[in-house]
Amino acid sequence: MASLGDIGVSAFINIVGALGFLLAFAFLRLHPINHRVYFPKWYINGQRSSPSRGPSTHNKYLNFNARIYLTFLNWMPKALRMSESDLIDHAGLDSAVFLRIYLLGLKIFVPITILAILVLVPINVSGGTLFFLQKELVVSDIDKLSISNIRPKSQKFWFHISMAYAFTIWTCFMLYKEYGQVAFMRLHFLASQRRRVDQFTVVVRNVPHVHGHSISESVDHFFQANHPGHYLGHQAVYNANKFAKLIRQRERLQNWLDYNQLKFERNPDKRPTRKTGFLGLWGTKVDSIDFYKEKIKELEKRIASERQKILNDTKSVTRVAFVSFDSRWGAAVCAQTQQSKNPTLWLTNWAPEPRDVYWRNLAIPFVSLSIRKLIISVVVFALVFFYMIPIAFVQSLANLEGLEKVAPFLRPVIELKVIKSFLQGFLPGLALKIFMYFLPALLLLMSKIEGYISISELERRTAAKYYYFMLVNVFLGSIVTGTAFEQLHSFLHQSPTQIPRTIGVSIPMKATFFITYIMVDGWAGIASEILRLKPLIIFHLKNMFLVKTERDREKAMDPGSVDFAETLPTLQLYFLLAIVYAVVTPILLPFILVFFGFAYFVYRHQIINVYNQEYESVAAFWPHVHTRIIASLLISQLLLLGLLSTKKAANSTPLLVALPILTIWFHKYCRSRFEPAFRKYPLEEAMAKDTMERASEPNLNLKAYLADAYLHPIFRSFDDLEMGEVRLDKNQSHITSPSISEVSSHSPPHYVYHYEAEP
Amino acid sequence: MASLGDIGVSAFINIVGALGFLLAFAFLRLHPINHRVYFPKWYINGQRSSPSRGPSTHNKYLNFNARIYLTFLNWMPKALRMSESDLIDHAGLDSAVFLRIYLLGLKIFVPITILAILVLVPINVSGGTLFFLQKELVVSDIDKLSISNIRPKSQKFWFHISMAYAFTIWTCFMLYKEYGQVAFMRLHFLASQRRRVDQFTVVVRNVPHVHGHSISESVDHFFQANHPGHYLGHQAVYNANKFAKLIRQRERLQNWLDYNQLKFERNPDKRPTRKTGFLGLWGTKVDSIDFYKEKIKELEKRIASERQKILNDTKSVTRVAFVSFDSRWGAAVCAQTQQSKNPTLWLTNWAPEPRDVYWRNLAIPFVSLSIRKLIISVVVFALVFFYMIPIAFVQSLANLEGLEKVAPFLRPVIELKVIKSFLQGFLPGLALKIFMYFLPALLLLMSKIEGYISISELERRTAAKYYYFMLVNVFLGSIVTGTAFEQLHSFLHQSPTQIPRTIGVSIPMKATFFITYIMVDGWAGIASEILRLKPLIIFHLKNMFLVKTERDREKAMDPGSVDFAETLPTLQLYFLLAIVYAVVTPILLPFILVFFGFAYFVYRHQIINVYNQEYESVAAFWPHVHTRIIASLLISQLLLLGLLSTKKAANSTPLLVALPILTIWFHKYCRSRFEPAFRKYPLEEAMAKDTMERASEPNLNLKAYLADAYLHPIFRSFDDLEMGEVRLDKNQSHITSPSISEVSSHSPPHYVYHYEAEP
Repeated sequence: MASLGDIGVSAFINIVGALGFLLAFAFLRLHPINHRVYFPKWYINGQRSSPSRGPSTHNKYLNFNARIYLTFLNWMPKALRMSESDLIDHAGLDSAVFLRIYLLGLKIFVPITILAILVLVPINVSGGTLFFLQKELVVSDIDKLSISNIRPKSQKFWFHISMAYAFTIWTCFMLYKEYGQVAFMRLHFLASQRRRVDQFTVVVRNVPHVHGHSISESVDHFFQANHPGHYLGHQAVYNANKFAKLIRQRERLQNWLDYNQLKFERNPDKRPTRKTGFLGLWGTKVDSIDFYKEKIKELEKRIASERQKILNDTKSVTRVAFVSFDSRWGAAVCAQTQQSKNPTLWLTNWAPEPRDVYWRNLAIPFVSLSIRKLIISVVVFALVFFYMIPIAFVQSLANLEGLEKVAPFLRPVIELKVIKSFLQGFLPGLALKIFMYFLPALLLLMSKIEGYISISELERRTAAKYYYFMLVNVFLGSIVTGTAFEQLHSFLHQSPTQIPRTIGVSIPMKATFFITYIMVDGWAGIASEILRLKPLIIFHLKNMFLVKTERDREKAMDPGSVDFAETLPTLQLYFLLAIVYAVVTPILLPFILVFFGFAYFVYRHQIINVYNQEYESVAAFWPHVHTRIIASLLISQLLLLGLLSTKKAANSTPLLVALPILTIWFHKYCRSRFEPAFRKYPLEEAMAKDTMERASEPNLNLKAYLADAYLHPIFRSFDDLEMGEVRLDKNQSHITSPSISEVSSHSPPHYVYHYEAEP
Repeated sequence: MASLGDIGVSAFINIVGALGFLLAFAFLRLHPINHRVYFPKWYINGQRSSPSRGPSTHNKYLNFNARIYLTFLNWMPKALRMSESDLIDHAGLDSAVFLRIYLLGLKIFVPITILAILVLVPINVSGGTLFFLQKELVVSDIDKLSISNIRPKSQKFWFHISMAYAFTIWTCFMLYKEYGQVAFMRLHFLASQRRRVDQFTVVVRNVPHVHGHSISESVDHFFQANHPGHYLGHQAVYNANKFAKLIRQRERLQNWLDYNQLKFERNPDKRPTRKTGFLGLWGTKVDSIDFYKEKIKELEKRIASERQKILNDTKSVTRVAFVSFDSRWGAAVCAQTQQSKNPTLWLTNWAPEPRDVYWRNLAIPFVSLSIRKLIISVVVFALVFFYMIPIAFVQSLANLEGLEKVAPFLRPVIELKVIKSFLQGFLPGLALKIFMYFLPALLLLMSKIEGYISISELERRTAAKYYYFMLVNVFLGSIVTGTAFEQLHSFLHQSPTQIPRTIGVSIPMKATFFITYIMVDGWAGIASEILRLKPLIIFHLKNMFLVKTERDREKAMDPGSVDFAETLPTLQLYFLLAIVYAVVTPILLPFILVFFGFAYFVYRHQIINVYNQEYESVAAFWPHVHTRIIASLLISQLLLLGLLSTKKAANSTPLLVALPILTIWFHKYCRSRFEPAFRKYPLEEAMAKDTMERASEPNLNLKAYLADAYLHPIFRSFDDLEMGEVRLDKNQSHITSPSISEVSSHSPPHYVYHYEAEP
């Protein structure tokens, strides 16, 4: 049991750490040379084309105006200045709603914190018999502020139960309001924004092979028959995965070529050389620039032949197509209805917006999807509960004895006492740290294998997996000792009512651990987020070795985006901690409030100045956030039930059992009330928008507008001339597919969109 | 433990009982006077208008041709003669698919029975050490044929495990084929049948109140705006619940009047009299015929005023409407899409066919539905687990001492030894028997309170509740001793892995009980079904006291229908028993096979000759049947796992765990593959049907066809003149609602369907 003093020390260390990060940020962001790392959003929006605009402009790269460092927190008020509607315009609805989650945390937990500290803490403190006997212990032990201090069978538990009710009702009330607000914002955003291609487009999967007809012909025929008067055309999807791989290879080689050319320019008397063998480690020495030029030439040939293959081989047309309609109404109807008698054919769904499409998965045959999902869910289960097994195995290898065996020459160094103790503390954790670092990428890979076709969906699924992992291994794993596997084993052999009891009892005891966790992971972690150490280093490395032109510098800039797959589960973990401890150990709440407030500032700053969202899912993640907060409520209610049953407050059981039932009912109600706004597109809305548009732009050429919105982005990497060729080829090989007859760049308005009817 | 001999005795008794029922049926059905009880379907179809057509016609009412009684089973081949497609034409798809469930039982379990008896029984028999020592015990104890006879840790369990796999795979394979077949039959039925009003109609719920507009105006306005070119008109729904109640009262009084008039006719010298007080028990004596005539006159007045109220009061228009479209495509689109920005308004769904609408629930405000569902689910849970508490209470009252206290004059009779022992055996069970008799009605009432708007949906929900009750109280309750409440209590305090173990161990021991249960409930029960004792008695009573004209006799005939709410859960219980015992005690299977075969014959006969389905849900119950058979598979796998874990065959666990995972996956696959056929109407299908119809009947007046298909049936009870009045009134009070200008009967083709546009 840590004392309040220990917590104070930990808080001091973490606050100093956070301040250190903030100071470093304040220092670094003022130098114009770093502006592309700390203000990339403004470059992308075109509001700042050179790093010249800054508080002081007397040096183009560095800024040594010392006075400015005193105001190292002045980004905070700046971050608040933008209104929410401006923020939506600036960064999109996803980001704005993401920020609202932090605000929601504050809205829910500030009143709860005040109430809990005013009511529950005095009751808890006055509850213990120890209070009168050993007064000094109360101050030094956080447990005395928690529910543990109440004697069994005490009537004081009624306060805790009524507080549990009050907190649940308040949380549900705020959740309800927030869900309504977010749903409204989503519909408003959809209604008020400009015309979007995805509003007119439906993705159809599992197009059947009809003998003697190409996929394109089948699609045309089917939709002309079943959506007459609404169907406009479609975009076939090519399986360009191999092609995309070659393009990526070319890019990599181009980078190496640039690097060597730059090296040569700076040092003109020595032509750079490299060896031809594996990784350039052995083989004959050759001139690097010639070598890469030759390689790129080779690759170009392969790319050209691969392109021909894609265009001429009917097998490269996947059984997926993007189908466009002449109105939002037509698309909404097609997306929400069943098309075919065989419900596994002609599956229609809203198309994700073009930026959001994960092209690689469009080529996955539909039949394999359900098997993929089965396998991945088994793998995720195994990962969550058994991930410690391989890590423990690696740890058992990666000890000092193992190291000495592999590298006996290191023995004298290792045997030094200082180094030995450092290594002994460091090595066993290393495997775990490496695993945790790669975990999100691993989970993303699993989601990709599952075959989701939009990046936003991939991120949501990854977030769900990460949340399960955190729930089991961080939350439960910290409360109940032993590995998750051992927990699973003991849970299976305990009675269902025993489980909340086992966990419930240990919850108050772990409060200090979680307070420390919040400070390390929450406070210091968020402060490090604003520093952007990794992008900073990568940017300067690229700047040094690859950048030749201003356009290259533009490309070297990596604004990143809010990493929903990681931040959402983390955030939900804090909600869980706050809800669970609100009744049990209210003193934990202020620490979480600091996290919510601080993270709100940081992310608001980052969203305004740094991140550039890849896609706009229009807050599609919100239902998941809502569901997981509800799940947290349920978990907290179950654990409180278990805790109180050990306190022999058995007469409270019926009251506490009613709570989860009401919560589940509330969730169901919310789902029926709001979720359709996130899953479907109401016809009323679609019709209103269509009517308005027809009135305001009667001569709009929608076909031209939709022309090649859903062309695989890889085809965009061609030059204009090549593009024309590709399209012509397409036009010849699949007569009925939409095609553009004129060679032109892909800015829509000039297109003429030809449409050949079925013969 | 019952011996094989005991089972033989029980089998003999039940077979004799079943034969008795069959003989009684053979005797009764030959008398022309009973033909309206045993062949009502033929009267309804109009193929037999008087009871004259029979094997022998020498007596109009009775038939004493003795030779015929020798062929008392000759209805069986007759029942098989009708082909499935004829059966669908004759009795509808629901009945045909219902019969297929019994056939499915045979298809699944005949091969399983053969395999299990050939492979598992010899293995089980050879397994016991007791076999060699006490040979005679083997024959007299059914346990020696079951898995209990295998010694712990025996390698022979591999046979059982591989059989569990084989049975699961075979069951899934047959289920898959059957689901596909039923889905095909459903789509084929929908495609091939004549035009149906419900194909063009959508029911819309929660129509919002717009200030200054009537509900009808809102509906018109909304659908004209959002489904232009497809919307045809709508039928407002009136809250006629009170009106319907008055009509029912009048009918009851009319029956009493008829009874008294008939009495007077037969006995003209004595006018029947009754007393005016409660139930006619006291008060002044009056002439019965005058009394009822007066009462009916009074009621007529109230009916007339109530009708005026309905027609003039805008509040009697509920927030529900039946909206009609000009094509199946338009209706399919409207039914499957979300209409309004607020997802709780304008909720559209396929309209049930007019016969299937449960009118009373249309008036339930939509907001109360989710609360109703919450309350009913709590009540059902309580009913399933705690129903024994009130019954035990009643039982404690209904004992002999209580009876003697209430009625001391009965004491001498009660004290007689024979009567005393009879009463002691009979009284305690009485409350339970009464409860079980009223249980389906009680569950139906609960489903009605939940607010479902179609009778078929009501029956399916009732069936689900009844299934839960049977699963917990018949299946688990018989296996684990003690009341369901005690089970729940002990289950909550056991570990989750202990539960299948506790149940698994007792399963082989209960085989004899279930064999007896199958014979009593299955064999004899089904045989009593064919006798139709209750309808027989009621028909003859009515015939005696109420029937004056041939039309009255027609009305007295009660063909009934397949009671899905009771038969489906029963059937599913047999599937559960068969699947659970297939591996454990295969000797139980032949008894279930006899049930499936016998019940198939009986229901086939009844469906052909007796039942007249009230509605046609086009096999909408099939997904539930499928799901519950899958659930039975899962239960059997879990119990086998528990059973084998007590047999210390622990190395089999991973193999057995894989089984439920694969089963769940199979279920998910089936659901995505077939269920949409039961929930949605594919646009391809709708369009094909529309196109065909337009080609074959270009001059069809759809408006006239749909005119008042969804008028509340209570309004049909008016005479033609009244009808016209009602419609005119309607037309005046709600100008925009569809109305018929000419007074005519309600056979559609002559209607002129006026449609006034929005002002």
